Amino acid sequence: MSSKITPNTVSSLKKVRVGVLGATGTVGQRFITLLSEHPWFIIEALGASERSKGKKYREAVKWKQTIPLGGLAADLIVKGCTPEEFKTCQLVFSGLDADVAGDIEYAFRAANIPLFSNAKNYRRDPHVPLIVPLVNPSHFSIIPQQQSLHSPPLSKGFIVTNANCSTTGYVIPLAALEKAFGPIESVLVTTMQAISGAGYPGVPSLDILGNVVPYIGGEEEKIEWETLKILGGITDSENETDKNGAPLKTFDMHQAGGRPALRVSASCNRVPVVDGHMECVSLRFHRRPPPSPQQVREALSVFTPEIQSLGCPSSPRKAIEVFEEPDRPQPRLDVKGTHNGAGVSVGRVRQCQVLDIKFVVLSDNVSIGAATSSIINAEYAVLKGIVS
Amino acid sequence: MSSKITPNTVSSLKKVRVGVLGATGTVGQRFITLLSEHPWFIIEALGASERSKGKKYREAVKWKQTIPLGGLAADLIVKGCTPEEFKTCQLVFSGLDADVAGDIEYAFRAANIPLFSNAKNYRRDPHVPLIVPLVNPSHFSIIPQQQSLHSPPLSKGFIVTNANCSTTGYVIPLAALEKAFGPIESVLVTTMQAISGAGYPGVPSLDILGNVVPYIGGEEEKIEWETLKILGGITDSENETDKNGAPLKTFDMHQAGGRPALRVSASCNRVPVVDGHMECVSLRFHRRPPPSPQQVREALSVFTPEIQSLGCPSSPRKAIEVFEEPDRPQPRLDVKGTHNGAGVSVGRVRQCQVLDIKFVVLSDNVSIGAATSSIINAEYAVLKGIVS
Amino acid sequence: MSSKITPNTVSSLKKVRVGVLGATGTVGQRFITLLSEHPWFIIEALGASERSKGKKYREAVKWKQTIPLGGLAADLIVKGCTPEEFKTCQLVFSGLDADVAGDIEYAFRAANIPLFSNAKNYRRDPHVPLIVPLVNPSHFSIIPQQQSLHSPPLSKGFIVTNANCSTTGYVIPLAALEKAFGPIESVLVTTMQAISGAGYPGVPSLDILGNVVPYIGGEEEKIEWETLKILGGITDSENETDKNGAPLKTFDMHQAGGRPALRVSASCNRVPVVDGHMECVSLRFHRRPPPSPQQVREALSVFTPEIQSLGCPSSPRKAIEVFEEPDRPQPRLDVKGTHNGAGVSVGRVRQCQVLDIKFVVLSDNVSIGAATSSIINAEYAVLKGIVS
Amino acid sequence: MSSKITPNTVSSLKKVRVGVLGATGTVGQRFITLLSEHPWFIIEALGASERSKGKKYREAVKWKQTIPLGGLAADLIVKGCTPEEFKTCQLVFSGLDADVAGDIEYAFRAANIPLFSNAKNYRRDPHVPLIVPLVNPSHFSIIPQQQSLHSPPLSKGFIVTNANCSTTGYVIPLAALEKAFGPIESVLVTTMQAISGAGYPGVPSLDILGNVVPYIGGEEEKIEWETLKILGGITDSENETDKNGAPLKTFDMHQAGGRPALRVSASCNRVPVVDGHMECVSLRFHRRPPPSPQQVREALSVFTPEIQSLGCPSSPRKAIEVFEEPDRPQPRLDVKGTHNGAGVSVGRVRQCQVLDIKFVVLSDNVSIGAATSSIINAEYAVLKGIVS
Repeated sequence: MSSKITPNTVSSLKKVRVGVLGATGTVGQRFITLLSEHPWFIIEALGASERSKGKKYREAVKWKQTIPLGGLAADLIVKGCTPEEFKTCQLVFSGLDADVAGDIEYAFRAANIPLFSNAKNYRRDPHVPLIVPLVNPSHFSIIPQQQSLHSPPLSKGFIVTNANCSTTGYVIPLAALEKAFGPIESVLVTTMQAISGAGYPGVPSLDILGNVVPYIGGEEEKIEWETLKILGGITDSENETDKNGAPLKTFDMHQAGGRPALRVSASCNRVPVVDGHMECVSLRFHRRPPPSPQQVREALSVFTPEIQSLGCPSSPRKAIEVFEEPDRPQPRLDVKGTHNGAGVSVGRVRQCQVLDIKFVVLSDNVSIGAATSSIINAEYAVLKGIVS
Repeated sequence: MSSKITPNTVSSLKKVRVGVLGATGTVGQRFITLLSEHPWFIIEALGASERSKGKKYREAVKWKQTIPLGGLAADLIVKGCTPEEFKTCQLVFSGLDADVAGDIEYAFRAANIPLFSNAKNYRRDPHVPLIVPLVNPSHFSIIPQQQSLHSPPLSKGFIVTNANCSTTGYVIPLAALEKAFGPIESVLVTTMQAISGAGYPGVPSLDILGNVVPYIGGEEEKIEWETLKILGGITDSENETDKNGAPLKTFDMHQAGGRPALRVSASCNRVPVVDGHMECVSLRFHRRPPPSPQQVREALSVFTPEIQSLGCPSSPRKAIEVFEEPDRPQPRLDVKGTHNGAGVSVGRVRQCQVLDIKFVVLSDNVSIGAATSSIINAEYAVLKGIVS
Repeated sequence: MSSKITPNTVSSLKKVRVGVLGATGTVGQRFITLLSEHPWFIIEALGASERSKGKKYREAVKWKQTIPLGGLAADLIVKGCTPEEFKTCQLVFSGLDADVAGDIEYAFRAANIPLFSNAKNYRRDPHVPLIVPLVNPSHFSIIPQQQSLHSPPLSKGFIVTNANCSTTGYVIPLAALEKAFGPIESVLVTTMQAISGAGYPGVPSLDILGNVVPYIGGEEEKIEWETLKILGGITDSENETDKNGAPLKTFDMHQAGGRPALRVSASCNRVPVVDGHMECVSLRFHRRPPPSPQQVREALSVFTPEIQSLGCPSSPRKAIEVFEEPDRPQPRLDVKGTHNGAGVSVGRVRQCQVLDIKFVVLSDNVSIGAATSSIINAEYAVLKGIVS
Repeated sequence: MSSKITPNTVSSLKKVRVGVLGATGTVGQRFITLLSEHPWFIIEALGASERSKGKKYREAVKWKQTIPLGGLAADLIVKGCTPEEFKTCQLVFSGLDADVAGDIEYAFRAANIPLFSNAKNYRRDPHVPLIVPLVNPSHFSIIPQQQSLHSPPLSKGFIVTNANCSTTGYVIPLAALEKAFGPIESVLVTTMQAISGAGYPGVPSLDILGNVVPYIGGEEEKIEWETLKILGGITDSENETDKNGAPLKTFDMHQAGGRPALRVSASCNRVPVVDGHMECVSLRFHRRPPPSPQQVREALSVFTPEIQSLGCPSSPRKAIEVFEEPDRPQPRLDVKGTHNGAGVSVGRVRQCQVLDIKFVVLSDNVSIGAATSSIINAEYAVLKGIVS
């Protein structure tokens, strides 16, 4: 990987031209809102389905953000989602729906375009990193292997995914605690997830008004699986080798290599909240005796992920805001927190009578849980020279 | 205790005259709604605060039930909460607020009036049983001791409490599982509780509309503590004796006697739901290997508490309704279930990656979670001859 | 029309076999819930789309009612929506979506099957009555003309529609007031409509949670137009004649005949309420001086529609419940009222500074606003011998 | 009144020291949020009840704003609400509750402190102006009379009130239309008001979750009365004279003087929305023929109140934002609009079948509907030299 580029270097360079796929959807709208004020990234192209293609973006979109649509993007002509139409982009963000993301994202990578995807399709791919930017940007190290295994090998194109919104929110304090106190042995997480996590039209109002739905299809499996990929290291594969016979790198899902096994049990609920996933977490450390609630509070509060020290412009001012008040955080008051939705808020850190420690974590599922993560991942890649 | 009275005996007797304390409050209104259609109990007297005393009930109350106020109770003159004014009642229900319940309930017992209380004040009293009628009516056996220890000893008066609404809901499936598979070792429960659980005016709308509050004062401690008292047996005290030197009976909170220790960890949340507490439960059995999800489903479904076989008229047709649909139960659709709010609904029974089994349980916090439990307790006491 | 059949006559006859079209949809589910307990009507056949055809109803439907699905209907095999499959039905209810109702309902009538439709397709047809059963069942008198104009003329088939839910609710007090005080000159109505009025999936939760949407497509036009058809009489057409040269009967939309002109202005809003349309009504009478608020209250309270005196089994115990409390009716507490959703509730009757009188009216949009109206219309037709 | 001071003059002067009464309440918190970023006003003193007195503000307040409490105000020691403790303030804002505002505000005026009040107590006072800053700042002209009638006459102290939140929102488009098309003859307004309008704890959640309450105590009278005072001019009193025998100025409530009579009819509802009052307005002009909807749209869109041209720093960028989309504005998406809550949003301008024109207006009840209005009024007074 190339030598480090400082933020100053970047801002003195000419701007980075980016594209957005799935631009009219919920996540796409969020990408555009965030990119409109980005110091480096300039929206060069917007892609959507055939129905929108050829229209001005402001006419193609049913804008559902509380911040009015403005800026240059509003008057861009929407393109189809083909690599040819995005040739001038240096990198592309994908807010595509899962039913189309697979083929389109593959084509973009094959066309040598770096792609930062919020879709779930490649999250389980053994050569695609699943990166929560406040946790495991080190997993970018698998990119050269991803490129070399492609046929033909790629010089620039790759796919990086970010995690499911409910995984992202709670894995950040987990990472902070593992950094401070060593491996976690088991985690029980019960989520209360906002409706915006399901996109638009998403959850019918008759299902959720004054109600709780104790089920979100596939969500529990995603949390249980993604946590292992994100918190696991990268290790040598036991079976696979490259053409030179060297072992391939692989994600240490079963913790065969470095860390001891981690067990995760998730229960997911939908609640009538617009934005903000609340998660009640109980966990047990390997280390005996476990840290005290006060030690946990301090470790969370001082956690400083690499993207902050590196100077990614979209990184939160504070990665984890720790509340002392007994009834906070709450979605309506705290979803943006002091971190503008790019970090998470933790409260109610206390002893668990069954495992060691329990707390609640609140994350902004449409910011750090979605588009903001893709954007920080891209900032990291630019600063590290992975995208040029 | 007297010989068993059958339902037939009861219905051939003259009706049972009952009183309601705290009649204008939320729980009081619920008592009156339920008692208005009761086959045995006749509302004889209603008690409330000075502000309401002397008014017709229909004028004193701000009626907040979806069932219109009607029947004989509407025209009763509200009395003060003194035993003298309830002399003609054979038993009294208390929906009093905790800030006044202590003294008033004490006075009623001292006046030899059997009292079934929904208030929390005497739940922790070592001689007062805390009875979830679908779980531990056997704890009525402590009543003679409660009466004999009173000074002077009581011939008829006693206090029986029912449990906190969130405890009641989840302890019913726990009891069913212990009956089928032996002791549970540990339980983690995360609640999503309805606003009606906080009474009226209760939760300010600015706190809960489109929001989740991850805290309910004292609630987690109540669940953790009450579960031990309810699921524990009654054993001989190690220290206390009666005047004859015989050991007093005491609740086996620490499971020193019969059952192995049980650890409970609760996380309580308020959600914008009107009626119906949802609780996500994970638990571990002592028994190895643990039962399968299918065995758990069957054990829950066949659970028949004593109050059902005894024929208490307010007992649910089915104690535990087990849902197979992946997204049920839900408060809005299922809070009344097939049990009319007097039982509970369980769904999503599946393996837990950390403990053994997880599921959700939904209970009607204003029915089985409050007034209905008091009423079934009273029915049980009448059928067993504890009240005459 | 044939001689009157009394309720006693009906109940001594064999039951009436009925079918339901659109059985899996929201309105269809409501039809089935109501018909399952109906004293006369026996569900003989259920029709739905190709996707459901051939399945047992309980497997075809995603049941969304708070009353559990039970009874005979649950095990019926769903049919396609063709008249051949409903030959044995004496009458059919339609809860079809508007995009398919036009052709299917036409075919049923052509096959000589009486059809009671909740769909909007034939509401504006000049020979199809638009009947709010508590207001204008006299419009059934147009049925013979509808049958005779069909080619070939029909002996039994016809189409009767009921009105849009928001029209139905507020037109009932209007009719009561016109009956008591003569014609109304102008009405301003502002609605706050429940989400269940939009069916399922209907309103996306992101659009309505904690929000008000000041627009419901086509709704204001429906209210303004339907009110004229319902409250207008039936008069001789000026232009159209039958084959004998006699003038055709027509709906007096422009009040050219009997009554003075009525002007209606509607403003429609969607609010986050599950069931129950609230409508704020201001109106001006022709008569000077206008009646006082107290006179209005009394006139509303004593209103007894023909369907009540005739003895339709689904008619409300009270057509209009008048509240004296300043803050009632409210959807959550009063949607069922004392009329079980088959009547309406009126409150806050007071003077209007601009027109004469203002009040609020609450109606159960899924009962009297939809299926219940179709069913009462059918009961009326049976009692009057229009269906045999 | 003194010669005009330009914004430049002001900003070159030393800052204006202000106080806030009722600082811990909902409106008080809003004052502090807005003043913390104000270019001129420096918070010098905070006053609250005895319970809070002597504590640091951050400890006395239960902060309920989505913007975190920060800045200098957080560490101020809360004072009692006596003029002595606010001596160093050049003007004071009052967010006091009505039950205490009467005496306290009187005392502040008597102590020669200019007071800008959000409370209702002095709104009907014949010498106190009721000023919606986008509508009638010209009513400041009554201040010298208010000061001279005080005993003893005041050199600096006065009381200015702003209007009720629901009046403020809809009177702004009314003023714009009267400016363009002459007097309005009659207005019917139906409100759907947010819970934040009732303060904290305010509306109990059991009353409003999934519900509409068709009543807000005193609100309809306020709208009907305040509109007349705000839109009326100032005229000579027929009866009252000053000590020199010159007629006193009075508010032209009955339009005896200049303008023709205006009739207002209001119907007020509470809906489950956090922030943003929606109001459905129908009105009739005196002028015949009335303007077309398109003319109305244009007149609203170009409306520029004096406070904008004068340069009040808190004035909205656009006073009235006019939406063309059929389903906007909506509280959740548009409450802040392009005017940051200091203007209003209008949509659905169309013909009314009964009066002339109808439309919806959305206003941010906690901004322009409350604290923001007081602050703009104070800015106006500073710029005009009324406060020095």
